[in-house]
Amino acid sequence: MELNPWTSKGVSDYEHVFKEFGLSEFPEEWRHSLKHRLFERNIIIAHRDFEPVMKRIQEKKPFINMTGIASSGPLHLGHKADIDLFLFFKSLGAHNYFCIADIDGYTSREKIATMDDAKKIAADNLAHALALGLDEKDVYVQSQMDSRYYEFVFELSKKITNNMFEAVYGHVDLGKVSAAILQYADILHPQLKEWSGKMPSVTGIGLDQDPHARLTRDIAKRLPYPLEMPSFIYFRHQSGLTEESKMSSSAPETAIFLGDSEKDVKKKISSAFTGGRETVELQKKLGGNPDICKVCEILRFHYPDTKEVERIMADCRAGKRMCGETKQFTIEFLNKFLKEHQVKVEKNRKKAEKIVYGKK
Amino acid sequence: MELNPWTSKGVSDYEHVFKEFGLSEFPEEWRHSLKHRLFERNIIIAHRDFEPVMKRIQEKKPFINMTGIASSGPLHLGHKADIDLFLFFKSLGAHNYFCIADIDGYTSREKIATMDDAKKIAADNLAHALALGLDEKDVYVQSQMDSRYYEFVFELSKKITNNMFEAVYGHVDLGKVSAAILQYADILHPQLKEWSGKMPSVTGIGLDQDPHARLTRDIAKRLPYPLEMPSFIYFRHQSGLTEESKMSSSAPETAIFLGDSEKDVKKKISSAFTGGRETVELQKKLGGNPDICKVCEILRFHYPDTKEVERIMADCRAGKRMCGETKQFTIEFLNKFLKEHQVKVEKNRKKAEKIVYGKK
Repeated sequence: MELNPWTSKGVSDYEHVFKEFGLSEFPEEWRHSLKHRLFERNIIIAHRDFEPVMKRIQEKKPFINMTGIASSGPLHLGHKADIDLFLFFKSLGAHNYFCIADIDGYTSREKIATMDDAKKIAADNLAHALALGLDEKDVYVQSQMDSRYYEFVFELSKKITNNMFEAVYGHVDLGKVSAAILQYADILHPQLKEWSGKMPSVTGIGLDQDPHARLTRDIAKRLPYPLEMPSFIYFRHQSGLTEESKMSSSAPETAIFLGDSEKDVKKKISSAFTGGRETVELQKKLGGNPDICKVCEILRFHYPDTKEVERIMADCRAGKRMCGETKQFTIEFLNKFLKEHQVKVEKNRKKAEKIVYGKK
Repeated sequence: MELNPWTSKGVSDYEHVFKEFGLSEFPEEWRHSLKHRLFERNIIIAHRDFEPVMKRIQEKKPFINMTGIASSGPLHLGHKADIDLFLFFKSLGAHNYFCIADIDGYTSREKIATMDDAKKIAADNLAHALALGLDEKDVYVQSQMDSRYYEFVFELSKKITNNMFEAVYGHVDLGKVSAAILQYADILHPQLKEWSGKMPSVTGIGLDQDPHARLTRDIAKRLPYPLEMPSFIYFRHQSGLTEESKMSSSAPETAIFLGDSEKDVKKKISSAFTGGRETVELQKKLGGNPDICKVCEILRFHYPDTKEVERIMADCRAGKRMCGETKQFTIEFLNKFLKEHQVKVEKNRKKAEKIVYGKK
């Protein structure tokens, strides 16, 4: 199975993937001790070597909490889940590194024509992230990093043979190679003495990003620095709103963006793929299928009250609740959230621009 | 013909190379108007698009003078020629960029195990360069550069397809790719508005470095900045002291290092390959062959008095001068120069270290 982060459209056969790539299912016990919907609802489904971080959490010792956003387009609900996870780990006492990956966004995406374009996206992304609760003290922007970071990026590059790279990604252009190397550095640099020093670290990623994770760990072993192997936890695949799609900032119709208007949301949710039957009568008789429903998926991923989500799914399955009702409920939930969120975004735009454009 | 900068052992068939790679012979007229031994003695033998720079020189307008040293080992006489050329262009009113390429040295050389090793070499190299007359204001160290430089490095990387790269270099590891990309950025970044801005630029390189030059020019065309095509001028191949070798910091017996002791110099020159005959009698009768003599080559490249060099060559050819005499003359010349030079090096070590290690 190909798990190329630049082309993969999604992963359905999880067990098969876990086995092939040596991931472990996220254990029930940890899911319950980590009090957050992403764990409780099994949205974080797998891990690679998370034990050292879990131990740190249990002992109330610090660990490195590292994630980031490539500046490739506007933020959508999938990014909100990444940020929620980051904020949760922060609340557990982590050292926090949130990367605004503007260079990565530029070099890896054909459609981003210039670094200026990437920075505009970066500033918009960051305004949204700050509105979601991110603290500016926990943020860094790739294009604003100092020479030590870049020295490390190049130190990394020496440890990668063509064979290692091609075995994982196949043949890729240098822009994508650059983006990948920056990602390895983003994940590993917090363990250098100039930052937090050697310490277990965790980064939440999509299953399709696992090739980056494996190469990052391979490289960590080869570097002349004391480093813990970085740990990764994996999000369940969040699919797009249409029948066969991944939620993607490159395809507006597949995702709810954090900047969407009430009208956008209404339109997208109304026409989203559900697990409903052909007629109301059939649905009352047979029940709906919330497992394949994109609207229910949004609630499972994002609605804060777990009991309410369970009730909705159960009613749907029992034929007591029609798709229209669930759609209306979801539209109202999203629009209430987005309205408040967007007010905060506007308040954070200037701060975000200042951070992205720095002192220059 | 393969002209791979990492493996090429030297180039003998110049004309063939000029034709194949589209270089132009350095014109007689320019050689005479540029009053420096490297031009007068036809040590700079070829160019790629040097006209715009020549025009600037003639009009007494500024141009960019860019060169550098990869931190891969101690400096030898070959590096002195590079620095002499740089100082000559500076005297013509250039904007000057001398790169201490510590990251390049580290990533492209297997034998340099850590960045710390590369920096030690960089500091030693720089102390020698300062002793040769380089002004610290004209120097920058790769690992000390600011984020704008690195942003540009990554912008460059996006403009290189695998095909472009492999067509020029074949299959190389990422460390070498990184070093190459840094070199492109070193040559082009002075033309960004944050530095000198758009302006003809010249870099003196060895013929075996031409692949870098061609790719740099290809990339310059693809970048979203106003850039003049960078010009290059090419050094005649400087061979090593032994019969078939390139002067190389990786092979101590092939080169006179700027840190060599009197004893080292005596030993190396005494055992160097010459164009002498098997016996003194034969040499008196047939004359020596200074064209293949490594000792005469040192004089041709480095001895300041052109008339004296011509006289020595002529006497050798005529059988009036034996190899021993020329060797003794060269040993004395080099040791006098190196003794004075090394005193200056010691005076510049602290300054060099301060520049290489910066504020960190």
